[in-house]
Amino acid sequence: MPEFFNVLPPDEARTLLLSHLTAVLPPQTIATEEALGRVTAVPITAPHPLPAFRRSTMDGYAVKAADTYGASASLPAFLQVVGEVAMGHPAAITLQTGQAALVHTGGMIPETADAVVQVEHTQVVSNQLSVTSNQSPVSSPQSPPFPYEIEILKAVAVGQNVLQVGEDVAEQAEILPAGRLLRPQDLGGLLALGIIEVSVSRRPRVAILATGDEVVPPDQWAGPGQIRDINSATVAGLVRQAGGVPVLGGIIPDDFDALQTAARDALDSADMLVMSAGSSVSARDMTVQVIEGLGQPGVLLHGVATRPGKPTIVGAVGPKPAIGLPGNPVSAMVQFDMFGVPAIYHLQGMRTMPKRGLVWARLAQNIASESGREDYVPARLADGDEGLTAVPVFGKSNLIYTLVNADGLIKVPLNKGGLLAGEWVEVRLF
Amino acid sequence: MPEFFNVLPPDEARTLLLSHLTAVLPPQTIATEEALGRVTAVPITAPHPLPAFRRSTMDGYAVKAADTYGASASLPAFLQVVGEVAMGHPAAITLQTGQAALVHTGGMIPETADAVVQVEHTQVVSNQLSVTSNQSPVSSPQSPPFPYEIEILKAVAVGQNVLQVGEDVAEQAEILPAGRLLRPQDLGGLLALGIIEVSVSRRPRVAILATGDEVVPPDQWAGPGQIRDINSATVAGLVRQAGGVPVLGGIIPDDFDALQTAARDALDSADMLVMSAGSSVSARDMTVQVIEGLGQPGVLLHGVATRPGKPTIVGAVGPKPAIGLPGNPVSAMVQFDMFGVPAIYHLQGMRTMPKRGLVWARLAQNIASESGREDYVPARLADGDEGLTAVPVFGKSNLIYTLVNADGLIKVPLNKGGLLAGEWVEVRLF
Repeated sequence: MPEFFNVLPPDEARTLLLSHLTAVLPPQTIATEEALGRVTAVPITAPHPLPAFRRSTMDGYAVKAADTYGASASLPAFLQVVGEVAMGHPAAITLQTGQAALVHTGGMIPETADAVVQVEHTQVVSNQLSVTSNQSPVSSPQSPPFPYEIEILKAVAVGQNVLQVGEDVAEQAEILPAGRLLRPQDLGGLLALGIIEVSVSRRPRVAILATGDEVVPPDQWAGPGQIRDINSATVAGLVRQAGGVPVLGGIIPDDFDALQTAARDALDSADMLVMSAGSSVSARDMTVQVIEGLGQPGVLLHGVATRPGKPTIVGAVGPKPAIGLPGNPVSAMVQFDMFGVPAIYHLQGMRTMPKRGLVWARLAQNIASESGREDYVPARLADGDEGLTAVPVFGKSNLIYTLVNADGLIKVPLNKGGLLAGEWVEVRLF
Repeated sequence: MPEFFNVLPPDEARTLLLSHLTAVLPPQTIATEEALGRVTAVPITAPHPLPAFRRSTMDGYAVKAADTYGASASLPAFLQVVGEVAMGHPAAITLQTGQAALVHTGGMIPETADAVVQVEHTQVVSNQLSVTSNQSPVSSPQSPPFPYEIEILKAVAVGQNVLQVGEDVAEQAEILPAGRLLRPQDLGGLLALGIIEVSVSRRPRVAILATGDEVVPPDQWAGPGQIRDINSATVAGLVRQAGGVPVLGGIIPDDFDALQTAARDALDSADMLVMSAGSSVSARDMTVQVIEGLGQPGVLLHGVATRPGKPTIVGAVGPKPAIGLPGNPVSAMVQFDMFGVPAIYHLQGMRTMPKRGLVWARLAQNIASESGREDYVPARLADGDEGLTAVPVFGKSNLIYTLVNADGLIKVPLNKGGLLAGEWVEVRLF
């Protein structure tokens, strides 16, 4: 065990862990449509500009802007509409000075046009018709046959109401860096460029072992002295939410050889090991010895300056994180969120963690703490007259229902002795 | 179309839509382990108290508290340790006055004990041994054979360091109401009680149709005047994140009969219809007519006081929501998030939406807006010396990469004419 076998503040502890995770999981190519929540393995560049042609942002008329200069409602410019650019078709019309082409929102602009006058600023004047503005030039039954004449009631500048080639993305621009978590709009952005496959990091496989002679599987009757395994399911849920694949290794008795063998087997076929140890000193000691025995660097620190969860064991075996969680369900969840979740993202190549969702709320009751320790207190959010109220859900860290009944965690900062009722506090949403 | 064919503020518009969605989707029973992100269909009660037996929260000795009264380091109480409660076993030891039992964290307390003295506050005195405190009584090789004598260095009160029966959950308590989104800790809470199956609402099937003569599938070459379908993938991603099942209906040409038929077929086999219409006035009019033709109540409102996305069409066909999104990808995403996502949760029986993740950041540039309109401006978050900075990503709502390059949306409230650089603003995380 290294010399710095001590209690570190959570941020330092996390940095230390991540600094040992030097390898990114190998990439795999998958359909972009299926890539939600995955992480890009390589930077992606635009194969062509977007849009690839000049598009109108309005229903109206493509014009040469110079033909409209000085036009106003009292002194309109007159243009001849020579045709229509149909949606989905090239703009094959060539405009001469004094001519315009009917275009629709999203439609292509003729090469000889440089602006669009929106239909609301025009009026049809030829053929005894005077179509009122603010109507679609297409669906309107009054649309006259081409050519017809319009009044331009307002001048446009060059480029007005036109989306230029490459205005969204330039050709060869890097659209996504490596290590980017893919969200719905990112899939849209890739597909807009015809990128239907994407190289992403493999999902991390996270082996989860529960230990303890008192722990039985959830589908079994728990007799006197026995409790059902809670932490495997809770940790598995957090693993899934972070894009990992939980691999449940079951419940191992409090026996060093059994635990060592199970841990070694589990880690061999996984990218990360999580052991939810018992909460007794002896159970924790055994977890330390097991992780130490798996390989270098072994246990990096044994203890984090937080409550709940101080006796968390943070280690690594080669490039694989190995984490020993306290057996108490509240501690286990808070600590896995603090170390396991960042590690899962990190293994996928993310070097910046997703921003945490927070809400601000007014604290309903005092919270005591100790300076030098970061506390996380489960809290329920209630809507009140003055905005949200955060009601602490106090309870020993053995009580899973303090988390079930909470919407998030109030963080009491490291060097603050507590929080006062009425203060505005940050609640980190689950 | 109802008379209130007008532009409503977003909150009123959403309330109007949800008020028409009266039916909750039918329940199905699934394994609790697989229920992450699903919504409970019925209230769930505890079949037994949790914990089901009195447990120790410390490594130490189960005692009769009265035997320790007045004890201190200078005047310890002496107790005889008569045995050990092994983890996972009933506490079969009967304590007489003056006796104690060795217990471990999480272990059962003998019926005749009413408190636990933590090991750090004890000292073994018999048999010439004086084990120092702060060591495990189990793993320590110095642990003497039973019976042995200990000094109690600090008194305990009745119940101290003991988790009472039902302290986490009382028998028959409602542990989860109907309509609750299941999170990792909720699965743990259910399994702790042996509830290995759970009744949840069926996942809503959301039919997604893209329309527009200019729209081609993402795997096709987009020629002049053509663009690839972005919105189907973006909306599908949001549907998945909210627990729904996207059913992609492909791209329908701008033809009323084709669109009507496709919409009817799609809605028949789905719980919700989303049409991503073109952005021209005629395309929007056609969407209105199609939704009107599908059944009552039809279009509920045509227009929301927001930017982007004002021309959103919100309707219902019987109990099924039918939403017409603007074709612009930014508008489509913002509007689907505003109406489609709450509708998906609502169909699953949730009557309170999940709290949105927000962060506060200092605005880097002025944002102009208009009173009476709620604006959503994509923003990138940057870490600065004074905390987070929100940098608006300006761009026309046709530009999907304004969303790809953003971390969230800045909300400009309905009755605020804009926001000033340097203000603290709420950024709603994607």
